[in-house]
Amino acid sequence: MLFRQFFDTESSTYTYLIASAPGREAVLIDPVKPCMEQYLRVIRELDLRLVTAIDTHTHADHITALGGLRERTQCVTVMGEFTRAECVSRHVHDGERMDIDGITLEALYTPGHTDESFSFLLDSPGAPRAVFTGDVLLIRGTGRTDFQGGDPGRSHDSITGRLFPLGDHTLVYPAHDYKGWTVSTIGEERLHNPRLAGKTREQYIEIMNGLQLPDPRLMDVAVPANLACGEERSIP
Amino acid sequence: MLFRQFFDTESSTYTYLIASAPGREAVLIDPVKPCMEQYLRVIRELDLRLVTAIDTHTHADHITALGGLRERTQCVTVMGEFTRAECVSRHVHDGERMDIDGITLEALYTPGHTDESFSFLLDSPGAPRAVFTGDVLLIRGTGRTDFQGGDPGRSHDSITGRLFPLGDHTLVYPAHDYKGWTVSTIGEERLHNPRLAGKTREQYIEIMNGLQLPDPRLMDVAVPANLACGEERSIP
Repeated sequence: MLFRQFFDTESSTYTYLIASAPGREAVLIDPVKPCMEQYLRVIRELDLRLVTAIDTHTHADHITALGGLRERTQCVTVMGEFTRAECVSRHVHDGERMDIDGITLEALYTPGHTDESFSFLLDSPGAPRAVFTGDVLLIRGTGRTDFQGGDPGRSHDSITGRLFPLGDHTLVYPAHDYKGWTVSTIGEERLHNPRLAGKTREQYIEIMNGLQLPDPRLMDVAVPANLACGEERSIP
Repeated sequence: MLFRQFFDTESSTYTYLIASAPGREAVLIDPVKPCMEQYLRVIRELDLRLVTAIDTHTHADHITALGGLRERTQCVTVMGEFTRAECVSRHVHDGERMDIDGITLEALYTPGHTDESFSFLLDSPGAPRAVFTGDVLLIRGTGRTDFQGGDPGRSHDSITGRLFPLGDHTLVYPAHDYKGWTVSTIGEERLHNPRLAGKTREQYIEIMNGLQLPDPRLMDVAVPANLACGEERSIP
């Protein structure tokens, strides 16, 4: 299996490329529109064929490359079943397993950052077990819960009820990082995430409700664009 | 084996933490002074013991954490034998192998970016074969060759004569990236690095001599500080 993590320095987004060694079929998770040419370049250089592009949720801080990648490569675009982005070709439900040329990704409904957020568990023979958590679980942090149907209680339930049971050795690959972390494990976050370790559900809700973060800079542009798979429309 | 890549967003430096699962002994490669507390936090959280801190070369764009880490953890500080940083505790020579609790790192003299640059090859059973290239070989780029004894011809010889023979599947982990890449392979760089692929040694020298880059912002502070393992001295 081939694995690459990309970092968009503008929005601090991590994008993941996973490809099978035998069939050269590839998946991208949370691709960012301004980095599309870089992904296509690597896919060409490594002699891969992009077959699937996934967004974990409707991002509010960058514009997705999903639509652009579909146009350029005819890949299938995937999001969870509760997304409002109707342009997506395939909507996966909780527990659904996608097999991409031997790469198995299981969709896990993990709301809280938004009400339509999914995580994706990589669980393939010969590959390290890893979960792509979008913005629900970050490294030593968690995604904000104050817009797009976000809910701190549901965030806590998703993290402790769906992600922590994946096992301490499962690698955690989030959609963002702002402090120089690139990867973690479930065990690390369970024991050392300052918002979660030793905190009750009520304390977590209090922390999240007290964050008072400004809206993401690109939110008013990114959310409508991402509902159209990245197509930027002038608002009438 | 435990492996972590850290990114300093200020200087775009990658730092690597490698630790043995059984003995919990750890190595840091190219640690950055302002990130020292983050490394020490992870080392504590993961129940590791830092025994070695390595700089691939005298950095000109950030201040090293070598001296600070030695003070805090009593780790051994390592650089190549041609460094002018006399404060370093251990000077390794070309071909020397360091064994850190089962983690084997082989020192490779790879001058070109500076005249004292070393790369370090991770070649341990159960770990992916990987080379930490400092600034000699970057992802789809190479380190500048215009100061600190840099030499484009020697850079070309180091990359093609010492690094490329490590084998196409060897992972490449550089000390910097500015464009969102996190890892590559020798094969990818051999075939797709625009400064090297399909270029003669003479063409490479011409490219490097024509770059006309400004001096690194921190150079006048960083180089003297790094020669003192990160101790910032007021210049008399």
